[in-house]
Amino acid sequence: MPIRSTQAATIVAAATRKAAEIGIAVSVVVLDDGGHIKEFSRMDGAWLGSIEVALSKAKTSILFQVETQALWDVCKLGGQAHGLEATNGGMITFAGGIPLKALDDSLSGAIGVSGGQVDQDYAVARAGAEAFNTNH
Amino acid sequence: MPIRSTQAATIVAAATRKAAEIGIAVSVVVLDDGGHIKEFSRMDGAWLGSIEVALSKAKTSILFQVETQALWDVCKLGGQAHGLEATNGGMITFAGGIPLKALDDSLSGAIGVSGGQVDQDYAVARAGAEAFNTNH
Amino acid sequence: MPIRSTQAATIVAAATRKAAEIGIAVSVVVLDDGGHIKEFSRMDGAWLGSIEVALSKAKTSILFQVETQALWDVCKLGGQAHGLEATNGGMITFAGGIPLKALDDSLSGAIGVSGGQVDQDYAVARAGAEAFNTNH
Amino acid sequence: MPIRSTQAATIVAAATRKAAEIGIAVSVVVLDDGGHIKEFSRMDGAWLGSIEVALSKAKTSILFQVETQALWDVCKLGGQAHGLEATNGGMITFAGGIPLKALDDSLSGAIGVSGGQVDQDYAVARAGAEAFNTNH
Repeated sequence: MPIRSTQAATIVAAATRKAAEIGIAVSVVVLDDGGHIKEFSRMDGAWLGSIEVALSKAKTSILFQVETQALWDVCKLGGQAHGLEATNGGMITFAGGIPLKALDDSLSGAIGVSGGQVDQDYAVARAGAEAFNTNH
Repeated sequence: MPIRSTQAATIVAAATRKAAEIGIAVSVVVLDDGGHIKEFSRMDGAWLGSIEVALSKAKTSILFQVETQALWDVCKLGGQAHGLEATNGGMITFAGGIPLKALDDSLSGAIGVSGGQVDQDYAVARAGAEAFNTNH
Repeated sequence: MPIRSTQAATIVAAATRKAAEIGIAVSVVVLDDGGHIKEFSRMDGAWLGSIEVALSKAKTSILFQVETQALWDVCKLGGQAHGLEATNGGMITFAGGIPLKALDDSLSGAIGVSGGQVDQDYAVARAGAEAFNTNH
Repeated sequence: MPIRSTQAATIVAAATRKAAEIGIAVSVVVLDDGGHIKEFSRMDGAWLGSIEVALSKAKTSILFQVETQALWDVCKLGGQAHGLEATNGGMITFAGGIPLKALDDSLSGAIGVSGGQVDQDYAVARAGAEAFNTNH
């Protein structure tokens, strides 16, 4: 079931709340199951470069239904699909993109976060994803 | 003064409220004064095509600091700059993009709306712009 | 003979001086004979959209060695090359681009101006071109 | 506070003076805080390829508010964001791009230099950045 507006807004709000708590400024995006933008917010002071990275992380999570950092194992030198990250207009292989799954495990959408250190981005994306999980 | 996150969120909320009132589903975007995305929301049921049109309307309003429909007079056959709309990656010359000006009349950002009839998009964009004007 | 840096700087200075005199804020660009950027200046307050239009005007003047407005006659409906303006990544057919010719009439470069009314842009571009003519 | 025309011209002049002193020919660009071109100059004899590299260096410094060479640590194999340099249309991870900060530490713009050896480009960019620092 594709993600609904109210869910997307809840996810973005939970993520930005977590970012403020950590003390970082991020871009947060929620894409629907077709990879199309549903909700986006850039906090004051977030790098301009975070816009595209957040979008690209979420898109990566839609394209292969994985958390972005999980893609690195197959993309790296010696991995079974070395160079895969260069397809689909370029993908991200470090943390910050998380697929959002419905209760029946079908894909609903994805969240992408950029703006802090990579582990911070991941914590923020997790906070958004958890707001979705407890909410559907 | 570039638009702040809280202002952008207020604008998007006012616009989507107006769209719901009219009974249409739209994409709404707020860009900062440099044309970079600050806030975005796509209502359930809005056409996928509305994403890029909303973005393009807002970008047009940033690029020439005008409401999008005002650009048509100069772009149309016989206008002083016929064909201008094809520059800057393609601009929109019908209603739905409105520049957001600070109290000192400098550019703060722009709102772009797409998804309904053009006059409906305009009414929704106006509702967003007015929420900004009463709020800064 | 391709335009030199000192000439390009003189041209841009003359153009921006003229624009200030008229009371408009413009983008001014000088390209070399290969259509590659040599000198650029955007005055405070000039529309962001003027950047690409100025570049596109100058490029058009390089591509066909004409003042941009002269291209309209061949491009318009019924003209001998209707649609030509859509080639080469998009050209401009209203005033503001002027080729810069050396004393032996070979192409040295071009100036492009955008930011005011079209006749104002033309006056500013002319001021730049004349600074070149009296200077080589 | 976004960079003003007079500041941008001062920066470019200081940079090209330094380049002449070193005996190299470079492209120098100053972007505003939104990444839009404000001032550009290509010295006689500078490689055509230096145009895009200078622009890309300055854009990189805008996008992540860092000197370009500082990005390499996070982008390299084993860095926390390996592959980041491929986002945002491609970024530069060697020296020559420097962010320009206002007195309140907010981003004003960036300088990008290309045309010489990388350490020479850096020296030229530094000369431009210092002219900004002593001038605002």
